[in-house]
Amino acid sequence: MKNPQYQELKALAQEHLLDFLPEIDPKSSTLYEAMKYSLQAGGKMLRSVLVLASCRFAGGDVISALPYACAMEYIHTYSLIHDDLPALDNDDLRRGRPTNHKVFGEDMAILAGDGLLSCAFEAMNKDKLLYLDDLSKLKPRVLAAYEISKGAGCRGMVAGQVADVEVENRPCSKELLDYIHINKTAAMIMAAIRAGACLGGADSKMLNDLTSYGEAIGLAFQIKDDILDVMGDEALLGKPIGSDAEQGKPTYPILHGMDASMARLTELTERAIALMEPYGEKGEFFRELAEYLAIRNL
Amino acid sequence: MKNPQYQELKALAQEHLLDFLPEIDPKSSTLYEAMKYSLQAGGKMLRSVLVLASCRFAGGDVISALPYACAMEYIHTYSLIHDDLPALDNDDLRRGRPTNHKVFGEDMAILAGDGLLSCAFEAMNKDKLLYLDDLSKLKPRVLAAYEISKGAGCRGMVAGQVADVEVENRPCSKELLDYIHINKTAAMIMAAIRAGACLGGADSKMLNDLTSYGEAIGLAFQIKDDILDVMGDEALLGKPIGSDAEQGKPTYPILHGMDASMARLTELTERAIALMEPYGEKGEFFRELAEYLAIRNL
Repeated sequence: MKNPQYQELKALAQEHLLDFLPEIDPKSSTLYEAMKYSLQAGGKMLRSVLVLASCRFAGGDVISALPYACAMEYIHTYSLIHDDLPALDNDDLRRGRPTNHKVFGEDMAILAGDGLLSCAFEAMNKDKLLYLDDLSKLKPRVLAAYEISKGAGCRGMVAGQVADVEVENRPCSKELLDYIHINKTAAMIMAAIRAGACLGGADSKMLNDLTSYGEAIGLAFQIKDDILDVMGDEALLGKPIGSDAEQGKPTYPILHGMDASMARLTELTERAIALMEPYGEKGEFFRELAEYLAIRNL
Repeated sequence: MKNPQYQELKALAQEHLLDFLPEIDPKSSTLYEAMKYSLQAGGKMLRSVLVLASCRFAGGDVISALPYACAMEYIHTYSLIHDDLPALDNDDLRRGRPTNHKVFGEDMAILAGDGLLSCAFEAMNKDKLLYLDDLSKLKPRVLAAYEISKGAGCRGMVAGQVADVEVENRPCSKELLDYIHINKTAAMIMAAIRAGACLGGADSKMLNDLTSYGEAIGLAFQIKDDILDVMGDEALLGKPIGSDAEQGKPTYPILHGMDASMARLTELTERAIALMEPYGEKGEFFRELAEYLAIRNL
């Protein structure tokens, strides 16, 4: 996304991405290498950017939100590493590079994923140690960490992954597909936005608006992913087209048809934009982001 | 362990073990089943008991420590599920029952492990939400969660797992074996004791003593495991004897010989007991525990 605020926040998160990993003993250096390999694969860093942008939107300082923004990226990256494993999606390529287990082996990829998830929570917990005597600063951090753990867990991303695995090669209702998309993808996007809002000190009206916005772009994001899996550009995506259908995974275009998928994407995008209208100029970034996510090529 | 306090605390943790899992949607019910299957496999629940016992030792209320005690068990259980996977130890049996992936498949076992680790942090984060306006109660909980995340992560258990995987079928120094044992096993035992101490409000002298005690029994615990892998009772252990050696894993008896291993186990046990001497009657549970861990058959 060419938006300058997106570029600024992405660059900030990227610059500090490794700062919140704990110091790892050289005897376990492969762990560090494997985690770093996937962290630095050059993704969009959408979830980190959302934490930072949402924190700023609510009036907070983006620097103070960095441990949470990077933690989101650790969690997202662990989920990709595990999702690519032979026992799951069995993908050889991710963002145009060999997947983690292709480079480091399955055992190390499993442990690198476990390590990244652990690092996310360690980073957030360590950050809180700095504010042990200041309740006004500790409280938003506790709230943010809760949002992130909820979005990543068994009422969020992991629940979505499980349903996604189980539905392969089976009949899937439209309701179940929405459940999968909302949990597998939207939950973490909503968690990023809610965490940032908590860190920035949003009031409940703003938190609700941002949550609804996050839900809309989160679902739109996954529908767009499904559409790209049918009509995307392999070279841009860095992975083969049609892999979802090949794996017997239900997608939005398969269940609803391409026209209805496009229409739903537009509807969700418009809803997200409308939610940010009342915020005027301040809401411009989030409106542009919703638009970009609907027209992106990767 | 027949000690009545151990039995009491183990029963308490067992009774509440599922209470801190989030409510999981029926559409992801297999996730819940897979997590529950391994959680209820009937282990010693040592790490939960340590959180509770250490909290009580420091003067705290064990009930309030339950979310942390159960979180430790979620983390320990996830580590066993992932460790048993074909890409890692490839074990078919655990505590006399088929391992998680043998029952639920590799994909679900990976996700059940991810789910349990996430649940651990969600449970601790959710508990903190109850004390958002009371710094005196929030602070010990933040400290406890930090200890647990550190022990479970890349300066703790995951680091030990990685070194353990990498050392297979390679020459291993005594120093490296100690590093593996301390990180793979002792780190979580120390984390349990330190978390409980924080929750109970231990002063720094007591925290230091408990930490040293935890380090001693943690290393002793793994040496005893290595010894049992040579001369244990398969029926009691619920898994085949000699599997470490068969997998080319260095163990204490292989590197140091059986006599030196026994001597080190005794030395560490005596050190642990000595650390608890100054606490008189109050330290009796921890002294008995150290003794039990050295003579246990499973």
